[in-house]
Amino acid sequence: MKVGIVGLGPMGSAMASHLLKAGHELTVWNRTPEKAEPLLAQGARRVDTPAEVASRVEAVISSLAHDAAVEQVVLGEKGVAEGLAPGVVHISTSTISLALSERMARVHAQKGQAYVAAPVLGRPPAAAQGKLFVMAAGDPGALASVRPLLEGLGQRLFVVGERPEQANLLKLCCNFLIYTTIEQLGELFALTEKGGLDRAQVFEVLTGSFFNAPVHKNYGRLIVDRAYDTPGAPVRLGAKDTRLVLEAGEALSVPLPFASVMRDRFVSALAQGEAELDFAVLARHVARDAGLKE
Amino acid sequence: MKVGIVGLGPMGSAMASHLLKAGHELTVWNRTPEKAEPLLAQGARRVDTPAEVASRVEAVISSLAHDAAVEQVVLGEKGVAEGLAPGVVHISTSTISLALSERMARVHAQKGQAYVAAPVLGRPPAAAQGKLFVMAAGDPGALASVRPLLEGLGQRLFVVGERPEQANLLKLCCNFLIYTTIEQLGELFALTEKGGLDRAQVFEVLTGSFFNAPVHKNYGRLIVDRAYDTPGAPVRLGAKDTRLVLEAGEALSVPLPFASVMRDRFVSALAQGEAELDFAVLARHVARDAGLKE
Amino acid sequence: MKVGIVGLGPMGSAMASHLLKAGHELTVWNRTPEKAEPLLAQGARRVDTPAEVASRVEAVISSLAHDAAVEQVVLGEKGVAEGLAPGVVHISTSTISLALSERMARVHAQKGQAYVAAPVLGRPPAAAQGKLFVMAAGDPGALASVRPLLEGLGQRLFVVGERPEQANLLKLCCNFLIYTTIEQLGELFALTEKGGLDRAQVFEVLTGSFFNAPVHKNYGRLIVDRAYDTPGAPVRLGAKDTRLVLEAGEALSVPLPFASVMRDRFVSALAQGEAELDFAVLARHVARDAGLKE
Amino acid sequence: MKVGIVGLGPMGSAMASHLLKAGHELTVWNRTPEKAEPLLAQGARRVDTPAEVASRVEAVISSLAHDAAVEQVVLGEKGVAEGLAPGVVHISTSTISLALSERMARVHAQKGQAYVAAPVLGRPPAAAQGKLFVMAAGDPGALASVRPLLEGLGQRLFVVGERPEQANLLKLCCNFLIYTTIEQLGELFALTEKGGLDRAQVFEVLTGSFFNAPVHKNYGRLIVDRAYDTPGAPVRLGAKDTRLVLEAGEALSVPLPFASVMRDRFVSALAQGEAELDFAVLARHVARDAGLKE
Repeated sequence: MKVGIVGLGPMGSAMASHLLKAGHELTVWNRTPEKAEPLLAQGARRVDTPAEVASRVEAVISSLAHDAAVEQVVLGEKGVAEGLAPGVVHISTSTISLALSERMARVHAQKGQAYVAAPVLGRPPAAAQGKLFVMAAGDPGALASVRPLLEGLGQRLFVVGERPEQANLLKLCCNFLIYTTIEQLGELFALTEKGGLDRAQVFEVLTGSFFNAPVHKNYGRLIVDRAYDTPGAPVRLGAKDTRLVLEAGEALSVPLPFASVMRDRFVSALAQGEAELDFAVLARHVARDAGLKE
Repeated sequence: MKVGIVGLGPMGSAMASHLLKAGHELTVWNRTPEKAEPLLAQGARRVDTPAEVASRVEAVISSLAHDAAVEQVVLGEKGVAEGLAPGVVHISTSTISLALSERMARVHAQKGQAYVAAPVLGRPPAAAQGKLFVMAAGDPGALASVRPLLEGLGQRLFVVGERPEQANLLKLCCNFLIYTTIEQLGELFALTEKGGLDRAQVFEVLTGSFFNAPVHKNYGRLIVDRAYDTPGAPVRLGAKDTRLVLEAGEALSVPLPFASVMRDRFVSALAQGEAELDFAVLARHVARDAGLKE
Repeated sequence: MKVGIVGLGPMGSAMASHLLKAGHELTVWNRTPEKAEPLLAQGARRVDTPAEVASRVEAVISSLAHDAAVEQVVLGEKGVAEGLAPGVVHISTSTISLALSERMARVHAQKGQAYVAAPVLGRPPAAAQGKLFVMAAGDPGALASVRPLLEGLGQRLFVVGERPEQANLLKLCCNFLIYTTIEQLGELFALTEKGGLDRAQVFEVLTGSFFNAPVHKNYGRLIVDRAYDTPGAPVRLGAKDTRLVLEAGEALSVPLPFASVMRDRFVSALAQGEAELDFAVLARHVARDAGLKE
Repeated sequence: MKVGIVGLGPMGSAMASHLLKAGHELTVWNRTPEKAEPLLAQGARRVDTPAEVASRVEAVISSLAHDAAVEQVVLGEKGVAEGLAPGVVHISTSTISLALSERMARVHAQKGQAYVAAPVLGRPPAAAQGKLFVMAAGDPGALASVRPLLEGLGQRLFVVGERPEQANLLKLCCNFLIYTTIEQLGELFALTEKGGLDRAQVFEVLTGSFFNAPVHKNYGRLIVDRAYDTPGAPVRLGAKDTRLVLEAGEALSVPLPFASVMRDRFVSALAQGEAELDFAVLARHVARDAGLKE
C-alpha cells in the first residue's frame, strides 16, 4: 500500500521502519529533514511538505508530539489537509486533545476527506516490532479501508467508536492509568521502605501476585531502580497529557480527583526543572515528601 | 501436622477446609460454634476456647475480621496467648494494624511464644483451593518451623521480613492498591462513558493491553457489571483497611494523597448507608459525582 | 472626566451609575442596547460600537464576563482597540486570564495605546455605592492619569504592579480565597451539624471570634440560610475562575491542591445542572457527601 | 471563687495568672512542680496531686496538651476524678478527641460529678489578658454554676450544646479553619510571588479588603515574615488536631477533603523534622513544591 508518514520522532520513525519491513511503499516528511535519512536508506521517499505526502499516497499517518504540531502540520499551510485527495484517509496517531480531534474532523469533513483517529499504546521499540496496541475511531467506511494497515501497525487493533475523538479520549485515559499507577506504586514503595521492607522484594510480591500487568512491571521496575534519567517518556509529555485529561473531564463534566493529584505532581516536577526526566520520577516526589533521601 | 484455626469466617473456614483436604489434623474454635459444623463433618475437632485450641496443636492460625476481634481472641481471657505452649507458633493471617501486630509480638515474646504474621491475598474461594498468596514475616526460626504449612495455604509464599508487622504493612499496601485501582477505573469509566464509549469495550481494551492484572480484571468486571450488591468484600472492611493504611502512614511519616482520596470515598459510602455493599461500589460514587444515573 | 464604559452587565451598570452620580460625563455601549436605558435616563450617552466609545472619551472602562467577550469587544472588529486614541487609557476591570491580559497589553502597546488592568472586588450593590476594592497594575504613567477615576470607583485602590496581568492574577487569587472559604465552611458546617450543633450558632461563634472577615460572614450566611437559588455570582463563573487560577498555576509552575479540590467541586456542580445557582451551593455538595439531606 | 487548675503549660499558666488578678483563690498542680512557682509568688497554692486540687475547690479547670495527658491527669490514679466532690465542676479546656470527652462525661456521671467542656480559642498572651474566646457545652445546671468563671476567662463565652463533646468538636473545627487558612494563603502567596507580586503588598490587599479576620492577619503575617522558628503553636499540635478532626469526620461520617490535604502537609512536615516549628511553616512546603527557595 502507498502510505505516507508525517512526523518522524522516535514513534513515527519506528512505525515507518516497521511498515517498510512489511512491504509498504513509504513517503515521508519531517520538519527536520535529516531525521528521514535512516528511512531513505531502507527505501522510503522523502518529500518537502506534508501536503505533498498527502497527495501521493492512499493513507497518511501523522505522528506528532502535541496539539500545536498537529495544528501546523495537518491544518496549517501546505499541511496534510491541503493535499489529501478524496478517498484518502488521514490517520492521526498522536495523543492530542479531544477539541483538536473534533476540529480536524470538521475540517476534513468540509473538504470531503476521510479522517480516523488511531492513537497507539506502547513505546517506540514496541512500534518498531509491530507490538503496539492501536485504538481507532472514525467513520466505519474510512476505518474499513485502512483496517489492514492499522492491524499491521500493532499486535492488536481495537475499534472503539465512530467519532474520532473517542479514540483520543480512550488513549488519554490509558495514559491517565499509567500516571496514577506511578503514584500508587510511589506511595506504596515510600510506605514499605520506611517500614523497613526491601523495595525489590516488595516489587516481587506485587508483580508475583495480583499486580502483574505490564503497567505494574514496567513502571514498578523504573521506581525500584530509580531509573529516571533516561526518559522513555518525559515529565513534559505526562504534564501535557494530564492537562488534556482534565480538560476532557471539564468538557464532559467529570470530576477527577486522582487526575488532580497527578496535575499537582507534574506541576511540581516542572517547577523543579525535571521536564526531561522520565515521568516515573514522580515516585521520587512521593518519597521525598516522606523525608526519604533519594 | 496438628493445626488449630481460630476464627471461622468465610476466610478461616475456607483455609480450614483446604488444610483438612491436605491431610492436616484440625482443631477449631469460633465465637459462634455452629459455623464449625461443616468442618466437623470433614473431620475437624471443635473445642471451647482459643486457649484450648492453642494447647492441643503444633501451630495455631488465627483468621479474624479486625483489631478488636484479635485483641479478644488472641490476647483476651482464654485467648490463644494463654494456651500456647513454648515452641508452638501462632500464625496471624488477619489484616490488622501494625500497632496491634507489634503488641502481639511483645506479648508472645514475653511469654516465650513464637509469633508469625502471615496475611493472605485472595478471596475465600481462592483459599478453599489453596490459591492464596501468603506474605509472611517474623522470627526466621519460627518461620522455618511453619514454612511447609504456609506453603500449603497458598500458591505462593513470600517471606518479607523478620518483624511480623512488616507483613501486615505489605498486606495493607496490597489492599491500598486494590482500592485505588477502583478509583482509577471509576474515573476512567465515568469519563469514557460520558464521552460515548461503551463500558464493556473499554474494559476489553484495558485488559487486552497494558492493564491486564487480576486487580484490573476482577474490579473492572464488577464496575462494568455494576455488581455491587453481593459483596466479595464490603465497604466496611475497605474503610477499616484504609484507616489502617493512613495510620501506618502517620506512624511512619509518609503522606499518602491517594489514600486520603479513598478515605473520603469510603466515609461518604458509609454516610450513605453502603457499609455492606462490595467496595467496588466506590466507582458508582465517581459516576454519580459526574452526574451519571446509575 | 469624559469616561466610557463598555459592558453593562450588573457590575458595569452599577459602576456607570456611580460614576454618573460623581459627575463624570459618560458614554456607554452594550451588546444588548436596551440595558443602557436606565443610564440614559441618568444622563449617559449611548453609541453604537466599542470603538466609538473609545474615540470620544479620556478613559474607557471595560466590564465583561469572560475572555471570549473581552476578545470580541476589545480586540475584535469595531472594538475598543480600534477607536482608542493615543494617550487615552483602556481600563479593564474584567476577571480574565493572565494570557489574555498579556495579549491585550501587547496589542495596545503596538498601537501606542495605554492599558491598565483594574479588576475589582465586590458585588454590584457595592459598586453602585463606590464601595468596591480596586486592584490595579500597569504602566505607572497610565496609572497616574486615571488614578482619580480609579479611586472614585471604590473605597480603596491598591496598585500592585507594573504589568497589567499582575492585577488579574491577584484578582483570581481573591476569588480563589472565596471559593476555598466556601469549602472550609462547608466541611465545618457538615461536621458540626452531624455532631448535633446548630448551624446558626456555629456561625455566630465563628464570626464572633477569629473568623469575622466579610468572606466568612457573607458566604457563611448563605450557607446557614441555604440561600443558593438567587445567585450573587453563579457556579458557572466560579468554575471559569477556578480554571483560570489553575491555568495560572500551570503557567507559573505552582501546584495548587486546594484549587484542585475546588475544580472537582465545580465540575460536579456543573454535571448536576447547577450552573446558574450561587456558587456557595458547593457547601451543599459537601453536606450531601456526608449523607445530609438538604 | 475557689478555683483549681491542673496543667500549667503556657496556656494553663496564663489562665491562672488572669484568674489570680481577678481575685479568685487558686489551687494548682503541675506534673513538673517548678512551673507553678511564678503563680505561687502571685498567691496561688500548690498541692501534690490533681485529686487534691479537686478536693479543695468549687471548680477545677484542666488545661492539658493531648488525650494521653488528660487520661492520666483526669482519669488516672490520684486524678481529678478521684478527688472531685459532688457539685464541684470539672471544666476541661483542653483540645482533645470527642471520644475522650465522651468517656470523661461517662466517668464523671457515674461518680455523680459535674463535667463541662470549655475549650478556648486564642494563644497564651490572650489568655493572660482574659481575651480568649470560650466555647462551652455540658449539663445546663453545671454550666450555670460556672458561668461567671467562664465569662471571666475570656472576652466572650459561647454555650453551644448540652453534650460536652460538642464544644470539643467546635474547637477542633476552629483549628481546622486555621490550618486550612494557612494552606489557602500559602497557595496564594506562592502563586503571586511567582507572578512577580510583592508578598507584603499582597498581604495588604487581602487584609485591607475582604480577608481581614484575625485568622488572615495573624497567619498571613507569619507567612509574609517567614516567621516559623518561634512557634506560637507547633506542627506537632497541628498534626494531632488534624488527626482528631479526621477521626471526628470518620465517627460522624463526613468526608473532609481539605482536612485530608492538611493531613498530608502535616505528615510531610513531621517527616522532615519540623515538629517543633510553628505550624504556619506549612506555607513553606507549598512554596517549595512550587520550586521557590525559601
